[in-house]
Amino acid sequence: MDVAVIGASMTQFGSHDTWIRELLVDAAEDCLAAAGVERTAVEHLYVSNMASGEFEGQTGIMNALAQDIGVLPAYTQRVGQTSASGGAGLLAAWQSIAAGASDMTLLVGGEKMTHLSTGESADIISSITHPVEYSHGVTLPTFAGLAARAYLNETDATRESLAHVSVKNHANGAKNPYAQFRKEIDVETVLSSPVVADPLRLYDYCPVTDGAAALLFCPVDIARQYTDEFVRVAGVAGATDTHVVHERPDPTWMTAVEESGTKLFERTGYGPEDIDIAELHDMVSLLEPLQLEAFGFAERGEGWRWAVEKRTTPDGELPVNLSGGLKARGHPLGGTGVAQAVELYWQLLGQAGERQVDAERGLCCNVGGFGNCVTSAIFEVGA
Amino acid sequence: MDVAVIGASMTQFGSHDTWIRELLVDAAEDCLAAAGVERTAVEHLYVSNMASGEFEGQTGIMNALAQDIGVLPAYTQRVGQTSASGGAGLLAAWQSIAAGASDMTLLVGGEKMTHLSTGESADIISSITHPVEYSHGVTLPTFAGLAARAYLNETDATRESLAHVSVKNHANGAKNPYAQFRKEIDVETVLSSPVVADPLRLYDYCPVTDGAAALLFCPVDIARQYTDEFVRVAGVAGATDTHVVHERPDPTWMTAVEESGTKLFERTGYGPEDIDIAELHDMVSLLEPLQLEAFGFAERGEGWRWAVEKRTTPDGELPVNLSGGLKARGHPLGGTGVAQAVELYWQLLGQAGERQVDAERGLCCNVGGFGNCVTSAIFEVGA
Repeated sequence: MDVAVIGASMTQFGSHDTWIRELLVDAAEDCLAAAGVERTAVEHLYVSNMASGEFEGQTGIMNALAQDIGVLPAYTQRVGQTSASGGAGLLAAWQSIAAGASDMTLLVGGEKMTHLSTGESADIISSITHPVEYSHGVTLPTFAGLAARAYLNETDATRESLAHVSVKNHANGAKNPYAQFRKEIDVETVLSSPVVADPLRLYDYCPVTDGAAALLFCPVDIARQYTDEFVRVAGVAGATDTHVVHERPDPTWMTAVEESGTKLFERTGYGPEDIDIAELHDMVSLLEPLQLEAFGFAERGEGWRWAVEKRTTPDGELPVNLSGGLKARGHPLGGTGVAQAVELYWQLLGQAGERQVDAERGLCCNVGGFGNCVTSAIFEVGA
Repeated sequence: MDVAVIGASMTQFGSHDTWIRELLVDAAEDCLAAAGVERTAVEHLYVSNMASGEFEGQTGIMNALAQDIGVLPAYTQRVGQTSASGGAGLLAAWQSIAAGASDMTLLVGGEKMTHLSTGESADIISSITHPVEYSHGVTLPTFAGLAARAYLNETDATRESLAHVSVKNHANGAKNPYAQFRKEIDVETVLSSPVVADPLRLYDYCPVTDGAAALLFCPVDIARQYTDEFVRVAGVAGATDTHVVHERPDPTWMTAVEESGTKLFERTGYGPEDIDIAELHDMVSLLEPLQLEAFGFAERGEGWRWAVEKRTTPDGELPVNLSGGLKARGHPLGGTGVAQAVELYWQLLGQAGERQVDAERGLCCNVGGFGNCVTSAIFEVGA
């Protein structure tokens, strides 16, 4: 069955003096309003969230949301896939429609993180990875440093080239009213920021973020009853790599991204050349070129050139992270994969304001852990 | 698409000196072996689990499992729906096949709980409910006491009638080698056990349990390539009630069970009269009669008679909880909904050993919170 998206929304990303429940409600209500769909039409409600139990002591947030926004007795489920919970939500929501189990599925992804200290958050986020690695002091940020060192050794990439990723994404974020950071930076800002995990520095990394985003899915024939302007889900596919990161043969190659992309291109009949825009998972600057390579946009070992040569800027051949990406829009774990697709929705329907580009088809990629599990999707203008 | 189940397994339920990862691996490996399916055939892997992050500080257990059992690069996702995570897993796994996203989906549900103190576990389990209720001291066990008092007031039920539910389920569990409790009890055992929440006593409640269970789903035409003996998923449906339990008009009526059942019977074309056996969510004795009523097996206010009149014993008109139910088989949160379906699978295929009855079609019902979200399903002998 052909699946459409007929509504999208997100809260301001940043630091909020509210709880996760309120963020989810705001995104959900705005999405239903944007689509002009009555709450009583919602049959399935999926909540992408990594760790509301750990962050707030609340595990029933999807049931709370169903009552708060008045969609009872709609079925609810929480979708968990670590920092890729949002991307997993895209697959779950798509499946619910494609399977004929629901004719109107609301997906809301979000996380509330900033009320905890960095140490407390690091403990929670490290629960994503294998305990043997965390117990040796290897966290996700330090994996990134080790992989970046290997990438700089094995390719012609310079340290500066990675800074260009952050510079571009900050420039994009400056035009996104929902972004956590709305200020431009330059290469020197990145290279003079404090070292986090050598060779990577503070401005290579995404921030800790509160925020939520939402999408409304239905069959294409029902979408047409509501609107002429909708987005079609061309395909969604996920794949998993080793949970023990240090057991991978090469830390600079994202196998799960490659596998997810291969499946996605196979299912949709599209290839990298058919994609106009992409939202990639720049949890750290390095990951953007690695994803360009694993999807086949760039040659292996050449992804770092794309930001340097401005091929991924808004007027380049493949604008990447027009939203500002995780770096500037922010990264509220379970919210990120949904927010990526929200940006594609807005871009494809010409609703992206100051950052609008011309695009018919977009790809998004949400990464869990250090590539431990990946979900990617292609959306295109509906017809 | 017609969806089949071609393998089922469960670990011993009880107290284990292992971690959740090992329980999930045991159930998963046994399921693949029982089905005779190569691990490389698995395309999607769903893990139903409520709170491994809270119980063990591990949120990446589905990714760990994928590596541990060698199904990479299969897509993985964690399915969360509080104590109904297992039932939600049935829906997720069914959807993945019915949508055509996967041709072989392994569902594993489990929880590791007994290593924490009762107080620590109570804190985690109470994260299911609304904080306003827990902060006033109302936990799931106390909700049950309040609802039982109301039920005894409003119907002709006696306190003894509820004890008959526990007596029956212990008798069934005594014949189940996987059950946590394998000893028969009598009404006096229940009535002389310590009061937990008046009028309910210790033997009205399910225990805290470690355990895991697994099922293997595929399209019916692929099932036929492996075996002549499989089970067909007639339907799965979920529904949600208010998250704030005290806002419901009547605590003795399980609206989400009724809604889930109505959808389920509508989709499958079956009614209560077509069901030969049932696995119901007897987290507390009272819930078994309440589910008999909400599904329409019993008249309203009359469900308590069924255990008393032996209509739900193995030789009664509707054997309920042949496995021993949550009371005797045990209740490892995310594992329960999967284990319920495992029992139906074994019964329908004549593999239930000493507790085997004659059945063509079975229903299971998994309840989250105090009926906050419910998933029910009907399985039948495949053809």
